[in-house]
Amino acid sequence: MECGLSPIIGFRFSLYPMADNFVEVIKGALSETDTSNVWMHTDDVSTVIRGKQIHVFNVAKAIALSAAKTGKHLALSGTFSAGCPGDTTGDVYLDKSDEIANRDATKQYVSSQFALYPMNNPMYMDIIYKEVDRAKQQGVFNDSMHYASGIHGDIHEVFAFYEEAFSNARSDDHKHLVMTVSMSINSPSHGGR
Amino acid sequence: MECGLSPIIGFRFSLYPMADNFVEVIKGALSETDTSNVWMHTDDVSTVIRGKQIHVFNVAKAIALSAAKTGKHLALSGTFSAGCPGDTTGDVYLDKSDEIANRDATKQYVSSQFALYPMNNPMYMDIIYKEVDRAKQQGVFNDSMHYASGIHGDIHEVFAFYEEAFSNARSDDHKHLVMTVSMSINSPSHGGR
Repeated sequence: MECGLSPIIGFRFSLYPMADNFVEVIKGALSETDTSNVWMHTDDVSTVIRGKQIHVFNVAKAIALSAAKTGKHLALSGTFSAGCPGDTTGDVYLDKSDEIANRDATKQYVSSQFALYPMNNPMYMDIIYKEVDRAKQQGVFNDSMHYASGIHGDIHEVFAFYEEAFSNARSDDHKHLVMTVSMSINSPSHGGR
Repeated sequence: MECGLSPIIGFRFSLYPMADNFVEVIKGALSETDTSNVWMHTDDVSTVIRGKQIHVFNVAKAIALSAAKTGKHLALSGTFSAGCPGDTTGDVYLDKSDEIANRDATKQYVSSQFALYPMNNPMYMDIIYKEVDRAKQQGVFNDSMHYASGIHGDIHEVFAFYEEAFSNARSDDHKHLVMTVSMSINSPSHGGR
């Protein structure tokens, strides 16, 4: 095991369209997204993408945004991981440039919840509180709650916050970081936003 | 903050029916489940239940099993938490007896993935590997994968494995434990099981 030696970022997620034509929505979003900068594998429960951080977040956002355009209520739920000691060095696309492949800037309201889990780090609660404070400063904080924090706003601002949080919350001394994100789009519970 | 002093277990989850009548499926599952042994709150993204471990797992399983009976493809995705230093002591139902409220034993195939995150514990990878080995011994292990492990079988065996894993992976010295579970039911990808 090569503990955290590589800059591999992974996101294991599922896209859940609350619609009878869920297969069509999922396949449409995947086909409309340029995933060439990440390694990707889908099984019967979830999909995992791996590569440079910039591409993993770009592809995740593009899939959600593409699916959102169907107008269907959907959720994107998953876990971002970096530096896992049990991680393998294969299945990565680290030779890609830093130029992102998906540039759709369409606005889309999302309501989401996240939790940070900095592993094997005695100061982990401080790291979590710091990122929650930053969300409040950036205007994307929605609500406090048990086990998570609510983050909402335009999908581009929300993903920018998450990518920065994921960078801030890990360090050379504490490479193993996990962040869960659950995102709701086009929900009848969002009060018409 | 009273760090891990109480036996509060929480599960923040979402039920995702991949169906146009998702509201009906969710409300039906919640109304058919006896949730009187847990504190419960729903917001625009997820639902959280809190209480004694036995009741939290019992209610989570009952909601999934009830929704499964609609025959619709659905997912249950969420995070079990215990001993979080930032947790509050309110919103719990710890005065309940240990008698479970939901006893439906109907068989239901589920395919799921889980990850354990024992917080602030230098030996956390050993704990994770031990529970994955136990899944293999108990016949519920499905597959290895990046960032998670596949667990499948009858819903009752799968939930029994998860509840035991959640007990095994925390201790008096390391009270803060997080476990993510993503579960797929009635999926066209399950090959007719």
